[in-house]
This record gives sequence, C-alpha cells and structure tokens, in this order.
Amino acid sequence: MHFVRINMTSQEAKIEPVPSNYAGLGGRGLTSMFLAAEVNPGCYALGEENKVIIAPGLLTGTSAPSTGRTSIGAKSPLTGTIKESNVGGLAGQYLAGHGIKALVIEGLPQEKHAWVLHINGTGVKFETKDNLAGLGNYEAVEKLRAEYGDKIAVISVGPAGEAGAAIATVAVSDMEGRPARHAGRGGMGAVLASKGIKAIVLERPDKLIVEAVHNGEFKEKAKDFAKALSESKKGLTTYGTAMLVNAINAVGGLPTRNFSSGHNDRADDIGGEKLHQLCTERGGSTGHACSRGCAIRCSNIFHDAEGNYVTSGLEYETIALLGSNCGLNDLDGIARLDRLCDDLGIDTMEMGVALGVAMEGGALPFGDFERMTAAVTEVAHHGSLGRILGQGATVTGRVLGVERVPAVKGQSMSAYDPRALKGTGVTYATSTMGADHTAGNALPGRGGLKPDQVDGQVDLSRNLQIWTMVCDMLGVCIFVGPLPDNMPVFASLASAFSGEKITEEMLIAQARDILKAEQAFNAEAGIGAAFNDVPGYFRTEALPNNGLVFDIPAEELKDFRY
Amino acid sequence: MHFVRINMTSQEAKIEPVPSNYAGLGGRGLTSMFLAAEVNPGCYALGEENKVIIAPGLLTGTSAPSTGRTSIGAKSPLTGTIKESNVGGLAGQYLAGHGIKALVIEGLPQEKHAWVLHINGTGVKFETKDNLAGLGNYEAVEKLRAEYGDKIAVISVGPAGEAGAAIATVAVSDMEGRPARHAGRGGMGAVLASKGIKAIVLERPDKLIVEAVHNGEFKEKAKDFAKALSESKKGLTTYGTAMLVNAINAVGGLPTRNFSSGHNDRADDIGGEKLHQLCTERGGSTGHACSRGCAIRCSNIFHDAEGNYVTSGLEYETIALLGSNCGLNDLDGIARLDRLCDDLGIDTMEMGVALGVAMEGGALPFGDFERMTAAVTEVAHHGSLGRILGQGATVTGRVLGVERVPAVKGQSMSAYDPRALKGTGVTYATSTMGADHTAGNALPGRGGLKPDQVDGQVDLSRNLQIWTMVCDMLGVCIFVGPLPDNMPVFASLASAFSGEKITEEMLIAQARDILKAEQAFNAEAGIGAAFNDVPGYFRTEALPNNGLVFDIPAEELKDFRY
Repeated sequence: MHFVRINMTSQEAKIEPVPSNYAGLGGRGLTSMFLAAEVNPGCYALGEENKVIIAPGLLTGTSAPSTGRTSIGAKSPLTGTIKESNVGGLAGQYLAGHGIKALVIEGLPQEKHAWVLHINGTGVKFETKDNLAGLGNYEAVEKLRAEYGDKIAVISVGPAGEAGAAIATVAVSDMEGRPARHAGRGGMGAVLASKGIKAIVLERPDKLIVEAVHNGEFKEKAKDFAKALSESKKGLTTYGTAMLVNAINAVGGLPTRNFSSGHNDRADDIGGEKLHQLCTERGGSTGHACSRGCAIRCSNIFHDAEGNYVTSGLEYETIALLGSNCGLNDLDGIARLDRLCDDLGIDTMEMGVALGVAMEGGALPFGDFERMTAAVTEVAHHGSLGRILGQGATVTGRVLGVERVPAVKGQSMSAYDPRALKGTGVTYATSTMGADHTAGNALPGRGGLKPDQVDGQVDLSRNLQIWTMVCDMLGVCIFVGPLPDNMPVFASLASAFSGEKITEEMLIAQARDILKAEQAFNAEAGIGAAFNDVPGYFRTEALPNNGLVFDIPAEELKDFRY
Repeated sequence: MHFVRINMTSQEAKIEPVPSNYAGLGGRGLTSMFLAAEVNPGCYALGEENKVIIAPGLLTGTSAPSTGRTSIGAKSPLTGTIKESNVGGLAGQYLAGHGIKALVIEGLPQEKHAWVLHINGTGVKFETKDNLAGLGNYEAVEKLRAEYGDKIAVISVGPAGEAGAAIATVAVSDMEGRPARHAGRGGMGAVLASKGIKAIVLERPDKLIVEAVHNGEFKEKAKDFAKALSESKKGLTTYGTAMLVNAINAVGGLPTRNFSSGHNDRADDIGGEKLHQLCTERGGSTGHACSRGCAIRCSNIFHDAEGNYVTSGLEYETIALLGSNCGLNDLDGIARLDRLCDDLGIDTMEMGVALGVAMEGGALPFGDFERMTAAVTEVAHHGSLGRILGQGATVTGRVLGVERVPAVKGQSMSAYDPRALKGTGVTYATSTMGADHTAGNALPGRGGLKPDQVDGQVDLSRNLQIWTMVCDMLGVCIFVGPLPDNMPVFASLASAFSGEKITEEMLIAQARDILKAEQAFNAEAGIGAAFNDVPGYFRTEALPNNGLVFDIPAEELKDFRY
C-alpha cells in the first residue's frame, strides 16, 4: 500500500511509501491524523494551505461485508473544523485494489481548468477537460464513461462545488455507474473543486479483492458476519433507511417545518412502506447495494410514475429534511430534489435545513416544490438566494435574520430533533464535526435508554462516537452498527487482515486518540468547547407534540472528553 | 446618579440606585462590567437574553473638554463578542445632566411597534410611534423635534437596524440636532432595534453642567487642559480626521481597492486639504464640535456644490473605506454615501470594507457610485445583495466566495493596513472587539516606533488598548489621545470629580480589569485566543507599494494578555 501525493500547483504526482505512523490506520483514522499533522487549522479552507485526503477504510476492498466506505477529509469551509465525510460506491474498493492507501491532494492550480485525474495501477495522468466544467455530476460521469469505458469508478464534483458552495458534496459512482453516492457533509466538494479537480477516474484494478494476511481465516469470519448481517437487517434491506420516517415520528422527533414540530401527520406519505411500494410498482428497486459485497443493501432505485429512473439512494435524512422539514410531503417531489442535489453536488441534509430556515425567514413558502427547485438550482449558478443557501443553514439564518437555526458549529442538524432524541443531541453538541448524526447516532433503543431520558445520554453519545470512529477507521458502514457487540468481530477481522493481534481495547484506544486529535485541531481552529451546545431555543421552546425540551446539563457538554 | 432599567416586554421602567461595584465606573467600563455580569455570552444577540446598556463616561457632562462620549454596549450580532461603541453628540451630556448613570434596556416587546422612550428628569414614558417605523434617521429626528421641540437630544436607529443588519448603528443627534454622530461598530443599532426601540428622546436637563465634588479645582484643571488641547490639535481642528488620508498614504497603509494596495495615487483628491477647501468654499465648515465643550472640534459640515447640507462629520475612516478602498476618489460621492449610511443607520467602515470585498467578488465594479448607492440602500430594504452586505465583510466574503476579507473576529478592519501599521495590526488581532482601531490605534509616531517595525508593537498595542480603555471609561474622546502624558491629567480630573484620590496607577489597573472581563466574556462566547490574528494572506501577500507583510509573530498574538 502507498500514498499518492498529488500537487495541483505543478500537476505532479508522487508515489510515497506509507509513513509508519499511519500504517495501522484507514478511513477517517487516516484522514484525521493526516490533517492534524499536515494542515494548519487556521488556514482558509478553499485556499492554498488546505489539503484533501481520500482514504479507503482499513478493510475496504476485502471480502468483509459492508466495508466499502471511502473517507474524504479536509478542513471544512462550512464549519471551520476538521472534517471527514465517508461515502459508499466503488471508489474505495478500486483505490484499495490499486494498493492506494490514500490520495493526498495539495496546492492550487495557477490557471483555471477542469482537471481530471486518471488513475490506474501505475500512476496518475493529469488531463484538462474543460468541456466538463459546470456540468452536473450525471452528465459529467456519462461523458467520462463514454471516454474511459464503463468499468471505471468516478469521484466527481458538481457545479455547486465549482461555485464554492460550502455545502457541496463529493460524488462517487455506484455499482450502476451513477454518481448517486455522496460524501455529503462539510463541503468536501468545494475543497476538491478549489483544487481545480472536476473528477478522478479510477480504472478497475486487476485484482478486485484485497487479500488479508491470514486470508483463509479472514474469509471465514467475513462470511459468517455477512450471514449474520443479512439476517438481522432485513428491515433496512426491504424499506431502506426510510423506515426511520415512521420510527422517528413515533418518538416525536421527526423534523417538521424547520424543527418547529417533531410530529408530521403525513409521515405515512413519505415513509419506508410508501417508498417500498413506489419502488416496487414502478420498476425501481429496494434492497439495492451501493457497493460491492454489501450484506445490508439499504439503498434503492426510485423511478417516476412513468417508470423512468429519477434517483438512487433516497435516504431517510433526505426525506425528512428536504421533505418533512420543508413541509413537502410527497416522495416524488423529494426524489426529484434529491436527484437535483446529487446532480449539482449538494448535501441534501444541509440544503433541507437551510431551506427550512429560509422558509421561516419568508424567502420562500413551506412545501413549494417549484420554488425549492429554483432555489436549489441557484446554488450552482450564483443566484442570490442560492449563494446564501449554498453557505449552509447558519449563514442563511444570519443573512435572513432567523434566530431558529438548527445547527451546531456551523453544520445543520440531521433528521433527529435533539429534544426528543437526546443522545443524538449530545452528539450534535459535542462532535468534532458539528451537528452530525454519522458521528454517533443514539437511535431509539441504543444503550437501553429511552431517547427522551436525560440520564446516561452523555456516556451513550461518547461511546457511540468512539464505536463509530472504529467503523469509520475500518471502512465499515454505520448501518452495520457502531455497537459494542460488533467490536469483537471488528477486532478479529482487523487481526486476520493485518496478521497482528488487534484487540477490541486496542481499537477503542485508537479511536479515542483520533477523536482527541480532531478535538485538538478544532481548538486550534478556534472551535473549542464553548461551541459544545445546541442553540439556546432548543432548551427553552418545547416541541408542541410532546412538550420536550433539550435538557442535558450544559456543563456536561462543555466538559465533554473522549 | 442612578440606573434606569427599562423592560421592553412589559414597557416598564425602574429607577435603581447604582450598585456599589459600578460606582467608580463610567462609559465602556460600566457597559462591559455590566454585560459581563448580566448577559449570557452564548445568547442570541438579537434575542430576549441580550441587553443594551447606554452609559455616559465618568466625566461626561462635566466642564472637562472633549468628554462628551456615550458608550453603547451589548453582545454584538456582528462579532459574537462583547461590544462597546462610543459616540459623541449631546445624548451623554443630557443623560448625565439627568443623573442617569446608565440606561439598561432589556426584554423584547410582544408586539411589533416603533417605540419611542421619552426621558426627562423624572422618568420614562413609553410611546408608540408607528409612523416612524422604517424612516431614515434624518426624517425621524426631524419629526421628533417637530413634536418635542428642538432642545431634545435623540438616540435613534435607522431602517438598517430595523431590518436586523448586523452593521447597523445607533445615531445620536449633534449640536445642530442632526443624527450625524454614530456608535458605528458591532451592530449596536440592530440590538437596540430588536428591543423595539426606534428612538430615545432626552429632554434637556435643567442643569447642563455636572458638578464635581471639588468643583473649583476641577474647573481649573479642565480649563487648563482645554487650552492645551486647543493649542496642540490645530491640525484636527482645521482639517478634521481627513488629515490622515495623506499621512497614512505616506506610510503606505491607506486601504485601496479591498486592501490590495496601501497607496492611492489620488489621495489628494480625498484628503484633508481638499475637504477643508470644499467645506470652506461651499458654506459648510470645519472646526465643528460634535458635542458641547469640545476643545478639538475635528468634525465638519459638508455641503454640495450648490451649498446645500449633505452630511456632517465626514471622517477619515469613512473617506478611506467607502472611498479609497472602494476605488471611489471623489469627496462628493463619499459624502453622499456617508449621508445615506447615517440616514439608514449603517456603519460606514464595515460597509466600505464589505463593499470592497463584494467588488473583489465581482458583485459590483470598483468605484461605481451609483451601484454602491443602490447596494447600500438595499441593506435597509432586504435587497438580496443588501442583506448579505448588511451582515458585514466576513459574511459577504463567505457568501461571495472571496478569500481576501480584511476582518478579525467578524469585524472589518479600520482604515490602516496592518502590514504598514503593525501596531494597529496587533490591536486588530488581539482586541476584545474585533478589528477596531478605536480599541488602540498605533498611529505613526506613537510609542516612538516606526509603524512598520516589528519590535515593540505588541507592547505598544497593549498599552494603547489600556490607555484607550481609560479614555473610554471617562468619556474622553480618543482624539484627546490615549497617551501616557495624559494619564496624570485624567487621574487628577477623576480625583477632583469624585472627591477621592484616584491615581494614574489606579486608572490603569481598573482598565486592565475591564479588558480582562471583556476577554473572559469572549472566551465564554467561544471567541478565544485562537481568533487573535489577522487573516493569513496579510502574512503572505506583500503590499505592492512597499513590499511589507504582517510579520508580528503569531505566538505573541495568541498569548496576548492585558
């Protein structure tokens, strides 16, 4: 395994041996330790000093199930913090297959071009493809596949990233070659675009499966784990993450109309069963895998009423935030907005929350699909409202004069109201990444706690953040579960993979070290413990549906340590 | 002396004795210690929890020269820090004359009205004047004078504050009854407007001069000091602060086209001599006093070519930032923009810097007076560019994708490029108020240092910040000079005023305590030492006119202590 260090100022690539201190790391473990070592926390996120690092998880590319994640890290233009956002699709498995432990992208090009990096087993070609500049991800990937063949995996940025939107994603192509998988959070697309990169084309490696040191043992354990997963995750396979719409509505925490309520009367219209029905009726599918070897297959392919493809991977967070939170209770509309966001390269979550804030601020009406479509489109085309929304919910609230902005450290909340799901609220408040459920999501039932109880949520969130870091290091999808029961399995897989004895305790200790390094980076960037809380109104304004406020003691959040 | 505590939720006013811990304080000393004690640093600046405190300086209202300052404090919606902005005009002297040590304004009204607080010696009347809502300061004050008579002093907010712009000022009427004096920085106008207040009408007190405890001694010292000032400040009296245009250009630090140069070839066209000439020729004046008893009289009255009043108090900062920094080298244009900003209640400095950033971002061309006028007007009327500019330079840079934003802690720099005037750069970086020359301005020659030398600037800035705090406590205008030579005079005036022995050392110690309290407030608000630096590009991109970069060691700024 090696690093590929790409200098966009000189358009040169260097193959480097992996420094020994990074040897046991992958995914977010690698991206965060690398950024902590090499990037000035105070730098301008879209400038010369920032670096993008793209790293498959430690087990990505192996036969272990649901390990296809790729971590993309940089200092975030949205939050000013260290950031990692991970994504499925094929890119991580292809990188691992080429023996690439990480792509490191540095510098800024002197001239404006749409660069395509063409990577195979032997090196990197720098190609200018100015005809791709400004194209949506779908069209750009189609053109690239026409040129390079349909076996490639593509990492790309859409026009929102090219426009500098801090809510821009990095798209990764899926098993069907569509740019439907996104590293959504924290504006990684804007950073990659600032480096002049439109796309990274990865040739399919000769050897598709990365072998473990103790390969027989590894394959056996992987097979057993895959079987257990596919048996225990049937709900996700059938309904996708959209099954959470009704579940979170039932606990009174489904974001509705800019988090003004946690209950949506029309949740059934946008829930998992309805999604399953539409996907099945119209020739789409559920049970779709976003990357090779997934045992859960929570993705889906969504068609319109005429049976034409609209989007893939229509997820709970998108449905709740672009839908319920914006007063849009119609899966067809939400699916079209999801496709538009995927095409432009926009985080559907931050967009949904920013739109909710803009709706409260009177910039457009709740539930108006046409106006929402126009506003989202403007993000990529320098429209005035679009430029504002493109900087996320916090800036939108500031410019439009809205106090009620559901965000922490400059990043919008995910689709769980922290008053009803207090453990997730603790994660929002304390995570190194801003409000981000993927940093440690206390779903109902986790840790044996009721989601609205106060006691125990800080410890639960801390543990979930640590367990999630283990998943993110290994490249394990969070739908496998950042759960204590999985830790022995992860340790045994990591041991068989590396040929070294890796215990559960070692994984936990490593995860804590990485979280501490992220915290230290943020403190140097000025985003310290003072920012460890949800906005004050969550503590004073009760949810109308259940009377709950967020009442985790503020001191416990300020004093939060890993 | 007493506090008047005004509750805008219940429209009640209470007269309170001054708590003993505030007895020796005035001006910024009082506003900051009060905010540190009573306001949650994490609160939403335009919400229920924030408070506005308006306090004349300790010597304001006395016969001591150039002591007419009024401090207005609140948590800032622009910077998120504690904020004090002080202003001339008559309000402070009237407040002191009524025995009011501070007005404290709390709460939020339930219904939207334009409230006018009518204050005389006996109490406060709450009057709704919805016909004033949205009016410019000039028209509003004219209507108030028509109703209440022309002896009143008026504190008011313009439509920019009513629109929630974080760059909104609080206007104070001058000796001619015009709202030409502004507490400009940090958005105090938005906070006052959030409380529902359009104006505070102060009746003229029966007793115009506040008497000292040792009144004879005080009057004598005051008279001597006034004489010394009027002899030493003749340049300011003749040319106003505009005399700095050529002086700062000469040291290569005059902000020009978004701080891309420190030299403006056309400085003569907007300098002090030109201003003096136009004021004199057209029936305006220089040597104008903004408040009663000023020995310096650096203000002016500017007329247009037809001899009609345009604006008053056309200052260096306005000329440099709305003029030179925006590529507008025409005093008539600058004066009209100054009038427009005064009328709408907009900080001319933040506006000039935000416009410079917007010009670099391509939103409007440099030097285009008509487009500038339209953009400024939009701030008060929810125009799309206006809403962005109304949140200041930092938000403007974020939304328009401009890296080069000359601001610290969310507040724009003043009209001194920190590469050429490094002591002022240290103040920008370390001040509790964001980039603000009024916190401690290292003008050429101060402390015997060359403005571009590195050694000694941190100590000079620290001392200037402390000496400036002494001025701000006493209500002494900074043009008197935050200089060591003045400290014994201030101590003897304070002693004679209070009847207690106040030494120079006591003033300095008190100033340091207040600065530390401000720092502590900011740290709790999350704006700690990590934010103590100028933007990185000032360290890497040299001024083209002299090759200077900002090279004060970053560690000295991070470790800065009072």
